[in-house]
This record gives sequence, structure tokens and C-alpha cells, in this order.
Amino acid sequence: MTAIDIPEDSLFGLANLPYGVFSEPGTAPRVGVRVGESVVDLAAAFGDEVFAQPTLNPFMAQGYDRWVQVRRQVTELVSGEVPDAAVHPVAEVTMHLPIDVADYVDFYASEHHASNLGRLFRPNAPPLQPNWKHLPVGYHGRSGTVVVSGTDIVRPSGQRRAPGEDVPTFGPCRRLDIEAELGFIVGTGSERGTRVPVADFATRVFGAVLVNDWSARDIQAWEYVPLGPFLGKSFATSISPWVVPLLALGPARVPTPVQDPQPLPYLRECEPWGLDVDLAVFWNGQQVARPPYREMYWSPAQLLAHLTANGATCRTGDLYASGTISGPAKHERGAFIELTWGGEEPVRIGDEYRTFLLDGDEVTITATAPGPNGTRIGFGEVTGRIRPAGVDLE
Amino acid sequence: MTAIDIPEDSLFGLANLPYGVFSEPGTAPRVGVRVGESVVDLAAAFGDEVFAQPTLNPFMAQGYDRWVQVRRQVTELVSGEVPDAAVHPVAEVTMHLPIDVADYVDFYASEHHASNLGRLFRPNAPPLQPNWKHLPVGYHGRSGTVVVSGTDIVRPSGQRRAPGEDVPTFGPCRRLDIEAELGFIVGTGSERGTRVPVADFATRVFGAVLVNDWSARDIQAWEYVPLGPFLGKSFATSISPWVVPLLALGPARVPTPVQDPQPLPYLRECEPWGLDVDLAVFWNGQQVARPPYREMYWSPAQLLAHLTANGATCRTGDLYASGTISGPAKHERGAFIELTWGGEEPVRIGDEYRTFLLDGDEVTITATAPGPNGTRIGFGEVTGRIRPAGVDLE
Repeated sequence: MTAIDIPEDSLFGLANLPYGVFSEPGTAPRVGVRVGESVVDLAAAFGDEVFAQPTLNPFMAQGYDRWVQVRRQVTELVSGEVPDAAVHPVAEVTMHLPIDVADYVDFYASEHHASNLGRLFRPNAPPLQPNWKHLPVGYHGRSGTVVVSGTDIVRPSGQRRAPGEDVPTFGPCRRLDIEAELGFIVGTGSERGTRVPVADFATRVFGAVLVNDWSARDIQAWEYVPLGPFLGKSFATSISPWVVPLLALGPARVPTPVQDPQPLPYLRECEPWGLDVDLAVFWNGQQVARPPYREMYWSPAQLLAHLTANGATCRTGDLYASGTISGPAKHERGAFIELTWGGEEPVRIGDEYRTFLLDGDEVTITATAPGPNGTRIGFGEVTGRIRPAGVDLE
Repeated sequence: MTAIDIPEDSLFGLANLPYGVFSEPGTAPRVGVRVGESVVDLAAAFGDEVFAQPTLNPFMAQGYDRWVQVRRQVTELVSGEVPDAAVHPVAEVTMHLPIDVADYVDFYASEHHASNLGRLFRPNAPPLQPNWKHLPVGYHGRSGTVVVSGTDIVRPSGQRRAPGEDVPTFGPCRRLDIEAELGFIVGTGSERGTRVPVADFATRVFGAVLVNDWSARDIQAWEYVPLGPFLGKSFATSISPWVVPLLALGPARVPTPVQDPQPLPYLRECEPWGLDVDLAVFWNGQQVARPPYREMYWSPAQLLAHLTANGATCRTGDLYASGTISGPAKHERGAFIELTWGGEEPVRIGDEYRTFLLDGDEVTITATAPGPNGTRIGFGEVTGRIRPAGVDLE
């Protein structure tokens, strides 16, 4: 039996207890919980088949009451002594994609980000479209290309038309970017023809992850009219391996910025609440941005209520992300196109100046949020390195 | 043993042999093939577990050579005598969604449709966007709301802003429409970071179905800038239950319309080929349109090559649809917004005039294609009836 050591300042103490899917060499992926620098194997600890699965989906589908119960059981378990066979150093395990992604939706919920992109893409028009303050704008992404942190990102190729060119050419993306986001994972689905009220968010959403929605800006700019982003985004979306339970994010609740005009009734919360999650973006190890999730205009509950407002079902494993998180200050921008103002204001990384991503570059996004009593909890990280475009993709 | 009767003019003769998933009362859904007015239970006939599954995915994942082999075995089987226990009248079985839908992508591949919508939505601009003839424009839809033919469609609610109104209101859709399309089902997936050449279409795509991509035009018009259609489409997409194998569509191959400018190399086929599939749209039983698939500008192989041009994977069960099929003539338009020119030219249905769908309306889309020696093969139908918006959705 092992008593798990949890340093007092650990971001993975008893107030966090995020779930993930891990394996050691030669073993099958299964569900674990991170505690300090250890992973606790829930299948081994509890002998429950639902944790011997390669994704969190079967456990999530058991519903809110069960999530509460298991969280209590895990807390009891790791507060005492844990069977040796159920404890692994986090440095010795491989983390896998924690969920079987059903549908993936990406929103556009930061007013600062939407305004910045409006100014960059449509300099002669109002930065926000007329609908922006009435509904959370969103679109479907490609669920089959959601990958776990650490997966290399092959530079996408595609059609892009440079300014001044008459016709597009095909080749490797020249403006490869990131989008630092928070993603929410639906635990239990809804029925077709009904909608999820804002009040049901807290019992239907299982947890949150960090998201890097890699974006090929040149491909996107050429293709996106009139049906929205497609190949400029669909090559890869990275998520962090540890799903922070919504049950751990109570102390992080903060009001959203004031919403004016008042949203329509189906989007109205008594008090719309966001999360005080502080992200940090590292470009080849150097911190370049601190996007503040608390600045997001639309709340996570509003995003889910909107997503299902037309009676569309949500399902266990649905992932919906916030869209790029940007605050009002320059160093709070969560995409390089904003941070470098369309490539016109390079960022100094070590001895070099950068605008968009070069082959070999690595981007890591981390985040923490308030825990109880002045402590903090961690989201871990989502990281990825750019590999050159494949020869067959040129 | 039963010798299956196949009338000489059957649309489901030996040249077709579409696959579906069926059940009788009290039995589990499993894979069958339609022959004449019978369904042949492949699990019972062949004793192979891959056909005892509730979706075609495991069989499709076995790959092209296996599809060829099974088609030959089925042909031999139904040409002789079939065990009684493996034959069911089609009228006595329930058809299920034939595939586990991985990602769903909808294209916009008809020049006539894109031009008509351009004229309606952007009357003061060129009907086609600058990118349209360079790439097949597409976007991701919601795979979780793909339903099988016969499923009722609850009228979606959502935000819509009528002309002359300053602010949007929330309520049941007032301009509920259809889109008559052909959908292609990916049988075997690709690797991340590679692309599917146009030449691989024929061995990677398993078959085709009819698609009705129900569309809430008022919701769509308000929400779709700048990230594309979302809630205006995501409430439901209906598909026909019988998947016509690509192996059955050889005689239906026809050249696409001339593509000018010449597409970029990754989209270039020796001879781009479409399919001579004739659709028919019935509104409450009355035929209102005959959309010709042969008029589509972009070929199905080009759609798949484009979808994966950035290195995005495709997976077993991916569904990608053509977008609305419209020909040059008015009676060839596959969406009511085109057929009624934005609601200004009502269509006579029996004694009534209609623009968009009313509660209780039923829409059925059927199609046939050339088979060998002057015969024809059928796609069956995709049908759906509109139910009133739920009270909680108003």
C-alpha cells in the first residue's frame, strides 16, 4: 500500500482530481486520476469495468450522481493508502485521448478575439457582425482529427491565394497559427427535439480541457466564404489529456462581463457565470501570452443552451470549445494572428522574431484556476510540435 | 429454401444489391441486402458475425477486396435458393440508420444551386464567390443528428431576424426547407498527414445514399456570418436506409460538366466523373422537382480529395454529401428556397400553394440510376414528416 505524496502547492491536489486515460508499456489504456505526480488506476483500485475502458465515455454516460459518488470515493481512496498496483508515476505513463469525441463544435465567444479578427479580416466594416451580441456564433469542427497533447502536427497544405495574386496555388500553409481555448465535454446526452436549459449545464457537462485549435490562416481566408472554416482548421485540434471535473471548478466561478443587450430568454441565466481560468501560451518555451478565460463574453452554459436551442441532441463525448480566448490587453491574446497583428508586429522568441509557426516550433498551453482557500488547481498542458508538410502534400 | 422473386423491372435486382440494417419485432438490428421486395439477412445466410452488427461499419472497415468478395457471394446466394430464415418481406422489417456516422461534411457542389443562393442572399454581388470554381466549398455538419428515413422532423426553433426588424426573436422556424442531395459513405479511413488521391475514391468509398439536409432558412440567414451554417442545419439530416454500393454504380458514370478553370493538380482527374442519378422530390405526395445529379460541377472523387487535402483523416463511417442538387431548369431545383425563389413564387400542391414547409407536411426524395443493359437501379427513398415545434422550444 502507498500513501500518495501531495506537495502542499500541488496543482493536482484533492481539490482537482482530473480524469484521464493512460497506459504503461504493454498494458491497455484505462481510466486514471491524477494526484500530485501520480496516476491512480481506477480500474485496479475499484475493480469496476467502467474504468477498464479506453475512453471516459462509459463512465461519463453514467451521469451526474455517479460522478459525484466516484469523486467522493476517489477522495477517500487517495486520502488513505492506495494499493501499490494502482499507483504509477505520471512521468512513466503514456496519456491517450481521454474521450471518444462525438461531435466537436467550436464557438467564437470572446468579444476581444472576434473584434480583433473583424478588424484584421474586414478593415472597412464594423468589427463585430450584427448577430454577435445576440447569439454565441459557432460552427462544427472535425471530430476525427481531435488529438491528444503531444501529438506532432503536420503542417497542412491547401489552397491559398496571396494578396495580389489572381489565382490560388496549392502548397504548405504559410500562416500556421494556434487558438488557445477551453473545451467542455458533455457527459450525458439530450433527446432530439428538446433543448438543454442553461441551468442544466452544471449537471450535464462532465469537465473541461485545454484546447489548441490549430489554424491555417491563409487556407482559411481563401476558403471560408460563405460556409465557414473547413480545411483551415480540420487538420488537427489538440486537447490536454486531463479532464478537470466541473465539480472541481466551483471556486473558479466568476460572473461573465456585462451582456448588453440582454440575451433572449433561452440564453438568460440568473447570473451568467464564467470561469476564472488563467491560461499561458509558450512558444518554444517562452511565454508569449496570458489569455484570461474570465473575459469571455458568453458563458459555457449559454454555449450549450444555444447549441441545443434548435432541438439538436448532444451526446456523451461531445466536445465544445470556447473559441480563442483573448483579453483586452495585447499580451492577453490567444492567437498569433492577433498577437502579431496579422504578422505585422513580430514577437521576439529568444534571439529570433516570429509571426506564424515555423517547422520544428513547439507550442504549449497551460492553465490554472482558483481552488478552495487560496489554493490553485491545474489543467496540465496541451502541447504540439510542427512537423514539415509531407512531400505528398506539396 | 426460397427462390427470391425479382420482377424484371425491379429497381432492386442483381445489379443493385444495396446494404442496410434491419430488424423485425423483437430481434436485434443486423445487416441485410435488399433483393426485389425481400431483405436477405446476411448474418443468418453466411453465419458471419460482421453482419450481426447494428451498423455497416465493421463490414465496411474490412475494405474494398472484401466488398467485392461479399458482393459476389450475395449474388450467388440470391441467384439460387436462400434459407427461409434469412428472407423477410421488406414491408415487414424496420430499417435503422445503416452506419455509425463518424464525421459528416456537406459540400456545395452544384453550380446552379450556389448561383441561385448567391442571387437570393447577395443580390448586389456576383452570384458565385471567387473561390467557388477553384475548390469544392464545404463545411462540417452535425453527425449526431443524422437520422434514418421515416424519422419525424420536429420543427426547429431558433433566433431569426425578419427583414425590417432591428432585433432577433426566438421561435419556431418560419422558412423550413429541404436540400435534396446524394451522400457518400467512406468505407476505409486514411492516415493523418496524408491525403486521399482522386484515384482512390473508387476503392475507399463504400456506397451512396439519398440525403435530405433539412434547413431552417431564417435561422441560417441570421447566424451564418462569418462562421457558416450551424443551428440552421444541425437539428436533423435524413438519409435513406439502403446504401447503394459504388460497385453497382459503374453504368451510372458520366463525365462532369466542363471544369473551367482547370482544377489544381490534387483535384485533377483524367476524366472527372459524376453519376447519372435522377432524383425526384415529392411534397405531400406530389412531385415538385427532378434534380439531376449529373449536373454537379465537382465530382465525388474531387470532394473526397479536397476533404483530405490538408492531411485530415477520413474514417470508416464518414458521410459526405454533395450539397443541394439543382439543374439549370426551374423544375430541377433541389431546395424549396430556389424552387419558390425565396418564397416569392409559391408551388401548387393539390389545391394549396406552398412556399416553405408547414407542420404535417411530408417530403420524400427518391432516385434511380442506370444499371446494365438499359435497366435501372433504385436508391429507395428518404422521407420525413414535419412535427410542430415542441412547446419548450417556443
